Amino acid sequence: MLRLSPPGQLRFGQASSFDVTYGGGESNVAVSLANFGLETEFVTRLPQNDIGEACLQSLRRYGVGTRFVQRGGNRLGIYFLENGAVMRGSQVIYDRADSSFATVSSKTFDWQAIFADAAWFHWTGITPSLSAGAAGVCLEAVRAAHEMGVTVSCDLNYRAKLWKWGSPASKVMEELVANCDVAIGNEEDAEKVFGIKAPDTDVTQGNVTADHYQYVCETLAKRFPGLKTIAITLRGSISASHNTWSAILWQSGKTFTGPIYDIMPIVDRVGGGDSFMGGLIYGLNTYVNDPQKALNFAIAASALKHTIFGDFNLVSVNEVEKLMKGDGSGRVSR
Amino acid sequence: MLRLSPPGQLRFGQASSFDVTYGGGESNVAVSLANFGLETEFVTRLPQNDIGEACLQSLRRYGVGTRFVQRGGNRLGIYFLENGAVMRGSQVIYDRADSSFATVSSKTFDWQAIFADAAWFHWTGITPSLSAGAAGVCLEAVRAAHEMGVTVSCDLNYRAKLWKWGSPASKVMEELVANCDVAIGNEEDAEKVFGIKAPDTDVTQGNVTADHYQYVCETLAKRFPGLKTIAITLRGSISASHNTWSAILWQSGKTFTGPIYDIMPIVDRVGGGDSFMGGLIYGLNTYVNDPQKALNFAIAASALKHTIFGDFNLVSVNEVEKLMKGDGSGRVSR
Amino acid sequence: MLRLSPPGQLRFGQASSFDVTYGGGESNVAVSLANFGLETEFVTRLPQNDIGEACLQSLRRYGVGTRFVQRGGNRLGIYFLENGAVMRGSQVIYDRADSSFATVSSKTFDWQAIFADAAWFHWTGITPSLSAGAAGVCLEAVRAAHEMGVTVSCDLNYRAKLWKWGSPASKVMEELVANCDVAIGNEEDAEKVFGIKAPDTDVTQGNVTADHYQYVCETLAKRFPGLKTIAITLRGSISASHNTWSAILWQSGKTFTGPIYDIMPIVDRVGGGDSFMGGLIYGLNTYVNDPQKALNFAIAASALKHTIFGDFNLVSVNEVEKLMKGDGSGRVSR
Amino acid sequence: MLRLSPPGQLRFGQASSFDVTYGGGESNVAVSLANFGLETEFVTRLPQNDIGEACLQSLRRYGVGTRFVQRGGNRLGIYFLENGAVMRGSQVIYDRADSSFATVSSKTFDWQAIFADAAWFHWTGITPSLSAGAAGVCLEAVRAAHEMGVTVSCDLNYRAKLWKWGSPASKVMEELVANCDVAIGNEEDAEKVFGIKAPDTDVTQGNVTADHYQYVCETLAKRFPGLKTIAITLRGSISASHNTWSAILWQSGKTFTGPIYDIMPIVDRVGGGDSFMGGLIYGLNTYVNDPQKALNFAIAASALKHTIFGDFNLVSVNEVEKLMKGDGSGRVSR
Amino acid sequence: MLRLSPPGQLRFGQASSFDVTYGGGESNVAVSLANFGLETEFVTRLPQNDIGEACLQSLRRYGVGTRFVQRGGNRLGIYFLENGAVMRGSQVIYDRADSSFATVSSKTFDWQAIFADAAWFHWTGITPSLSAGAAGVCLEAVRAAHEMGVTVSCDLNYRAKLWKWGSPASKVMEELVANCDVAIGNEEDAEKVFGIKAPDTDVTQGNVTADHYQYVCETLAKRFPGLKTIAITLRGSISASHNTWSAILWQSGKTFTGPIYDIMPIVDRVGGGDSFMGGLIYGLNTYVNDPQKALNFAIAASALKHTIFGDFNLVSVNEVEKLMKGDGSGRVSR
Amino acid sequence: MLRLSPPGQLRFGQASSFDVTYGGGESNVAVSLANFGLETEFVTRLPQNDIGEACLQSLRRYGVGTRFVQRGGNRLGIYFLENGAVMRGSQVIYDRADSSFATVSSKTFDWQAIFADAAWFHWTGITPSLSAGAAGVCLEAVRAAHEMGVTVSCDLNYRAKLWKWGSPASKVMEELVANCDVAIGNEEDAEKVFGIKAPDTDVTQGNVTADHYQYVCETLAKRFPGLKTIAITLRGSISASHNTWSAILWQSGKTFTGPIYDIMPIVDRVGGGDSFMGGLIYGLNTYVNDPQKALNFAIAASALKHTIFGDFNLVSVNEVEKLMKGDGSGRVSR
Repeated sequence: MLRLSPPGQLRFGQASSFDVTYGGGESNVAVSLANFGLETEFVTRLPQNDIGEACLQSLRRYGVGTRFVQRGGNRLGIYFLENGAVMRGSQVIYDRADSSFATVSSKTFDWQAIFADAAWFHWTGITPSLSAGAAGVCLEAVRAAHEMGVTVSCDLNYRAKLWKWGSPASKVMEELVANCDVAIGNEEDAEKVFGIKAPDTDVTQGNVTADHYQYVCETLAKRFPGLKTIAITLRGSISASHNTWSAILWQSGKTFTGPIYDIMPIVDRVGGGDSFMGGLIYGLNTYVNDPQKALNFAIAASALKHTIFGDFNLVSVNEVEKLMKGDGSGRVSR
Repeated sequence: MLRLSPPGQLRFGQASSFDVTYGGGESNVAVSLANFGLETEFVTRLPQNDIGEACLQSLRRYGVGTRFVQRGGNRLGIYFLENGAVMRGSQVIYDRADSSFATVSSKTFDWQAIFADAAWFHWTGITPSLSAGAAGVCLEAVRAAHEMGVTVSCDLNYRAKLWKWGSPASKVMEELVANCDVAIGNEEDAEKVFGIKAPDTDVTQGNVTADHYQYVCETLAKRFPGLKTIAITLRGSISASHNTWSAILWQSGKTFTGPIYDIMPIVDRVGGGDSFMGGLIYGLNTYVNDPQKALNFAIAASALKHTIFGDFNLVSVNEVEKLMKGDGSGRVSR
Repeated sequence: MLRLSPPGQLRFGQASSFDVTYGGGESNVAVSLANFGLETEFVTRLPQNDIGEACLQSLRRYGVGTRFVQRGGNRLGIYFLENGAVMRGSQVIYDRADSSFATVSSKTFDWQAIFADAAWFHWTGITPSLSAGAAGVCLEAVRAAHEMGVTVSCDLNYRAKLWKWGSPASKVMEELVANCDVAIGNEEDAEKVFGIKAPDTDVTQGNVTADHYQYVCETLAKRFPGLKTIAITLRGSISASHNTWSAILWQSGKTFTGPIYDIMPIVDRVGGGDSFMGGLIYGLNTYVNDPQKALNFAIAASALKHTIFGDFNLVSVNEVEKLMKGDGSGRVSR
Repeated sequence: MLRLSPPGQLRFGQASSFDVTYGGGESNVAVSLANFGLETEFVTRLPQNDIGEACLQSLRRYGVGTRFVQRGGNRLGIYFLENGAVMRGSQVIYDRADSSFATVSSKTFDWQAIFADAAWFHWTGITPSLSAGAAGVCLEAVRAAHEMGVTVSCDLNYRAKLWKWGSPASKVMEELVANCDVAIGNEEDAEKVFGIKAPDTDVTQGNVTADHYQYVCETLAKRFPGLKTIAITLRGSISASHNTWSAILWQSGKTFTGPIYDIMPIVDRVGGGDSFMGGLIYGLNTYVNDPQKALNFAIAASALKHTIFGDFNLVSVNEVEKLMKGDGSGRVSR
Repeated sequence: MLRLSPPGQLRFGQASSFDVTYGGGESNVAVSLANFGLETEFVTRLPQNDIGEACLQSLRRYGVGTRFVQRGGNRLGIYFLENGAVMRGSQVIYDRADSSFATVSSKTFDWQAIFADAAWFHWTGITPSLSAGAAGVCLEAVRAAHEMGVTVSCDLNYRAKLWKWGSPASKVMEELVANCDVAIGNEEDAEKVFGIKAPDTDVTQGNVTADHYQYVCETLAKRFPGLKTIAITLRGSISASHNTWSAILWQSGKTFTGPIYDIMPIVDRVGGGDSFMGGLIYGLNTYVNDPQKALNFAIAASALKHTIFGDFNLVSVNEVEKLMKGDGSGRVSR
Repeated sequence: MLRLSPPGQLRFGQASSFDVTYGGGESNVAVSLANFGLETEFVTRLPQNDIGEACLQSLRRYGVGTRFVQRGGNRLGIYFLENGAVMRGSQVIYDRADSSFATVSSKTFDWQAIFADAAWFHWTGITPSLSAGAAGVCLEAVRAAHEMGVTVSCDLNYRAKLWKWGSPASKVMEELVANCDVAIGNEEDAEKVFGIKAPDTDVTQGNVTADHYQYVCETLAKRFPGLKTIAITLRGSISASHNTWSAILWQSGKTFTGPIYDIMPIVDRVGGGDSFMGGLIYGLNTYVNDPQKALNFAIAASALKHTIFGDFNLVSVNEVEKLMKGDGSGRVSR
């Protein structure tokens, strides 16, 4: 997906240029994993033009495999991002209708081949929101992965501006999540997708505390018995420039809470959830049997994302581990 | 329409920002006319979001009226422009499908109100190429204008990458042009739309001379008896950085040829035809009964356009007249 | 007025380019009102050159009417703005002497025509500070408006670097304010113009609280019985990057206090007072008989201004209302 | 003087930033001489603010001495420069009225001290054009230098947009030039200042040949017997992007003609005459008794100036000599 | 290698930023081949820091394989490039001493593994110029490739500023070229490396014609019997902005000449020879038994390079073929 | 030294340009002193190329004398700076090996001449860290200055990434510091160079309080009896964007503590220590016999440095004094 954003804090109408980056839920996770040293393949469909090519280059640049990327369709999905500041929130204008990916159909991808050597498959709630075709292909993929023994993770990732193709999110997501082993969401996703609301919370006032969200995890786990691991990211939105950031992890009945980071001033918060997911997949695979450490890695990784321009979380394992160990002093390394 | 172009001569994949301007056939003509001091209204449909608002601001900035602009639909049409250089041609990637304008329908505009105080209506061949709806609305407008005694002009403006909605260009344009009083085209438009080819010409070799194109005017005039004025712009494409530029004007049986400008190095050639049309409408209305002068104004105005960044021809009547009088020396005014 | 500022936090001597915007007291209020959907005309005098034209385009862009703008004189006033940070304050260098507006004289504007359809006239203390001619024209305008039943508002807006043409500010302003219905000022204006000081305050230490300023309002009201509405903006200057922002409103004997916003990091504080005035005029006209709401709108609007680059407050009524309702969380809208 | 120019070929109204450089006739010559290794002092008056300071830094940066620079007055003179292209000429808007230099008076500079160690004094026709005060100070300086045996050179440099303070250019310049040893001008200066026109020339058509200008030199020499050396720069203005460039030198009755350089595409032609003067002063002092070589150095130096952004000619003696020897191939040095 | 260049035509001292790209002889060829669709691996050594990583990303971005890249040593080689214009040549300042590659030694690369699946190996004369270690490793590679039946090509690429480590270029290159099958050079390389000068040529005057260079090819072929294919690129250096560009190809006794392209204005000529080599390797492998077509492809590809910013030739096979067919008109593709 | 940094908060791999500034320990102090109005000469060795020239211009620009700068050697030292944000620290990559200065030898500078008119000599621990030659020259200078009665100050300035040429820092510094009158260091320098650690401190947790560092001063004073004045800067590293900043001064047995500034958000913290040293030298020379005021000046000056882009502290005495008096409100000066 092409991201176009006015430089700095300019409003759309003030900009005589837009900064160009590429990103989007699953690709953001893929770049995180590639940065952490895991072998990663990104599966999508891109138009056969130079904008599609530029997107592809952007993924290859960070070491993400592109063997399974299909070329076709009419256009690359676009989103316009206006960066907010203080009490003015960032604004996203989606322009994704009829993108090459939104117009995929059931024969577009050969999932058997794709999953042949795969150990983990990740998708986000944005994919099925785009179109009936995209939802169908997503279901194909999830089923194939599940049957082939590939671990399946999802980010519920609800976007009100996108779910417009007919079926309600709740119904579509129900079947998809039923095939998953791992799920994450932010403070609102479970409520907006499945109506599971954390008690006594109001995200616009910043009171998002870990204990309120244990309930969300447990309710999700009951509803989707396949889910062995559930995480909820917890963003305290003090202002567009100042957030707190944490998460909880539920695994097989136990709930783990992580540190809360205070982030001010935020450089770029888009892709925060994806960077958490990238950190969590790395953490679960690296700190096997240590869910606390996996959670801590994911939170630290995604806290750092807020200091990086663009959707991608361009940090190394070393940098995440330094922060996990408690050094957030930002002293110059020289 | 939103125009996104890599800075300078960068290729799409090299750009970390895109220059943002707004433009498109009819709006370019409108801005030319407003710059020349004529009262002008632009009629279109823009999405109800801040990108649509930015487009509107861009028109208002140059004094174009926006009273009749409708808000609605999903998106602003986009085109990506990569600037060429020397033997590498510029490249346009259209991303206009399902734009707010492409999804207009017959009730969108109230043409009686729009033309109530109007003396001239201009449209281009790009409009009906976008969709059946756009073609229908265009026909509505052309008929209403014609019936209300408004002079109607068109730019044939053939774009192979756009005409895809079903009806062939030739058929749609036939009916539209039949209601017109004035038509212009470039060296290729008449051939590509109506199969009327200038003999012995090859646009990629630069041999486009005035005498070959008199035939095109006469053939068009026979086919469309309503056309009292026809002009053909003549671009000698020596390279992407170096063109010659001229035009011929046919009016009621007589053919006028204008000076040939040598343009090197070109700053921005997009909108060249529109700036010619803007100059011609101004010229025909100002130098009444002096078609040679009208043509000379139009050629000089559009030659100057090649020195202006963006789609819009931001030159004044004074500047055009100075060039018409033969001063293309580019001496500093101080 | 042309505003030239080094990019980001660069000092003047470091800059190889200056960011270009246009602004100034009254025009900033006009743009606010146009953004809020009110019909607005800006009255000034601009030089007949392309810098003057660019200024005009900048106003038209945001929908401000320019019918009454005169062209003439020698130059557009300039101010250079160096953006401060933390404990380094922003620095303004005025270069306004002999601007086209400063050289106006009593015949420049036809106030009868200008106020024929007007309901409200706003001016600021910067105008009479520029020259005897500007002060004279300002007085002409204020009297004409007052006589024609147009509501007159002013922003006391004292600028020590400007008042240099002879008459002291206190004397000139006395007569002007006597014709006004509404007046605003910041924490220092009433003191610097009329010697009315809020007790126990020190603006460089940030202790500017509402109760101290009620006295200022009441004293002003006694001195200028025409004033029915008085407001004082209250900026707590913690640092150049961090302010608190609030205001009080006095109306016919009652004092209203508004919420205090904490703004960190500030994007651009220039034009803060003007954006308050724009919000207040909108508020008083929209929330008739609800001065508290009018005040709250004005404070919220001007708090948001601190997040917008340039002099103009480019926010919508919706955005202001969202903040008024308490949502300053800056969550991404998507 | 502060020079503000839209980036690239943008028009004034299109620019959201202006490139910032400093320059002006005499300072440009000073920088040339400092670059060529001569000890140079620049004498002017700059305002006591950070814009004046930035101007000073800009001179010091290139090694120009600033010991005699006075601080005072209200503002730094400004000129706005819009870069032309092809048949659209560059446009200069002067905003110099009431600059710190324009408001100098007879006591501002101590010419005895300034010329104590000086061998050469250079001034341009722009200085006396600014104000009566500037003209008076210029005359003071010229007389003092002449009396103290300092060689005095001038560039006639006529600017129609500037001479507005009362006395006609011809009268003021008469007395000034009478005290000079060396004078230069462009194709038009002698005509515009003293009515001495080269026969059969039309600068807007590019026919400026050396033989026509011998007459101008001889007529000047007769009128001003003190002038031992006169040079005329010859610019063939094919377009704003394409010029030819040459000059003739007259010395004690003999006329020397130099090579003609073909310059395409021009990077920045402002300061071309000043760079010629800088080259000529260096040449006359270095190639003593070889006026042909002095001329050739000056032409080569100023031809190279057209490839340098800004007013200053940032080339070295080595680079000029390489071009003098005929190598204008532009091969990469590596 | 890191390339740092002032924006546009700025001189080094004027720049407040440097454009950052990555490039260098062999990598430029690798990117060309990857763009043309051939599988390519780049072999080098990069420092284990984020500048080295950025270089690696730059290669991966364009699809060049980086499996064999070693990490180690102290620094990435740098070159500073100042872009010339018209008669001011571009200037290169090398800062490559002690780069990670210059400090390689004989055990750094496992050539057996590297060439296991390779069909072609390319190196340039820059590599052995850097240090004794680099020359040794280059010889290792050339011998290994030759023995394993891999076609070996070289670009003589003489850089006077580099050859400083002890052994003369002629001696070192003698042994290296003796193991090659294909060699290219520019108009001067054969002379500067082996003393083989084309008769009657002067590169600074632009007279470089094909017939003079047949002699160079034949003399090289006699001296290095292994060379079956030799090509010489022919640059006519009219100015830094204007070159002609062609080449001759000698193959097994026959000489082929190609078209001459006129390139004005040049966007970026650095990497021109590398882009020729990339085109030639592609051409020789694609148009087997048609050396004329291989030559034409190489010339067209490298002519297009002059229109692309940076060292890399980012053009596609389609674009090259369009130019080969004679369409250099630069018409907009839309 | 050339400093290259990605714009804003971009990571190295994201940047398509690097901001270019010049700086380095001693030059930063020199620029501070020149800004404060003291006559200053900078002594170094720069390469004889245009990058060296640009560095020289950068110093001259701010009024630093360059009479004693030598030209020679191969390259200008470089450091790459990636700006951190929040919990991501800034990153420095040094590329200084074999710089023109690192390759100095004992005959490079004529210290007798240099110190002939000097009253104060300052050096930093970075100089002897570069190479044996640099350490030797530094010792030469320190001894010469000491013998000639010039006050000698040093900044211990330990850089782990630099000390690699053989001798340990402790040994080399021992002899150097023994010749000094004044020494400063940050919270860690005394520990890293001489093993003198403040008790109960942890710099990555931000607990750096004045009382812990009195011990460091006293221990240093005992070890180096020549030291009459010692200062320690105290940075509380809350995050990369948020620091506290203070210092203590020890003079002849008495310890002075200064105010603590809270700095958020930091613009550029590089050169903070140097700006403290510049402020201290100015303060000790200006507020003779008032060490408290000298300390306060140094802290205020260096707190302000954190708001200035680049290595140099471009603030005036007035600005520092305003902050010393307690006005850190950052109100706009207008």
